Amino acid sequence: MIGQNEYFEGQVRSLEFKNEQGNFTVGVMEPGEWKFEAPVKEWMHLVRGTWDVQQPAGQGEWTTYKEGERFEVPGGTDFTVRVNDTVAYLCPYTGEFLGHLDM
Amino acid sequence: MIGQNEYFEGQVRSLEFKNEQGNFTVGVMEPGEWKFEAPVKEWMHLVRGTWDVQQPAGQGEWTTYKEGERFEVPGGTDFTVRVNDTVAYLCPYTGEFLGHLDM
Repeated sequence: MIGQNEYFEGQVRSLEFKNEQGNFTVGVMEPGEWKFEAPVKEWMHLVRGTWDVQQPAGQGEWTTYKEGERFEVPGGTDFTVRVNDTVAYLCPYTGEFLGHLDM
Repeated sequence: MIGQNEYFEGQVRSLEFKNEQGNFTVGVMEPGEWKFEAPVKEWMHLVRGTWDVQQPAGQGEWTTYKEGERFEVPGGTDFTVRVNDTVAYLCPYTGEFLGHLDM
């Protein structure tokens, strides 16, 4: 089963799957500033495009990441992503397969 | 707008977007053997997992690709992908943004 997630009225969408390597979402973010909470430890890999990231959301420094780069999100923390041009990303996450992530 | 595509009763799903770099789908394929036709020139990049590919579909040799590798699909040709464990892929394509690819 490939899960489908929608956030911020469809301006962020992701597909959810698991394989031998673990659990993942792969998704697309349109331009905007998007805050996410990570219930479990996860990583955010940039597949296409660039983004600025603030960890934790609203407080930390902004860091710019390029295609192929990634950042880690400890479980139970949040972050804000600032997207200027639509990006694609991959998010491996720990713990059990959630199938369908609800915000 | 992030397009949503579904193929083979949801065993293959993709999200469609464009940015300054061009047009893309990013998607997930579950285990199975899936035949696709490429109306325009495109590339199939493996983001997670491995797959075997036959170009053109039904005739050519099978080639195995690993994560990070890609193959090119000339416009107007077809190919078959054999997936043993669910994969994620990125497909940059040429021509104008289709928004929503119908098989």
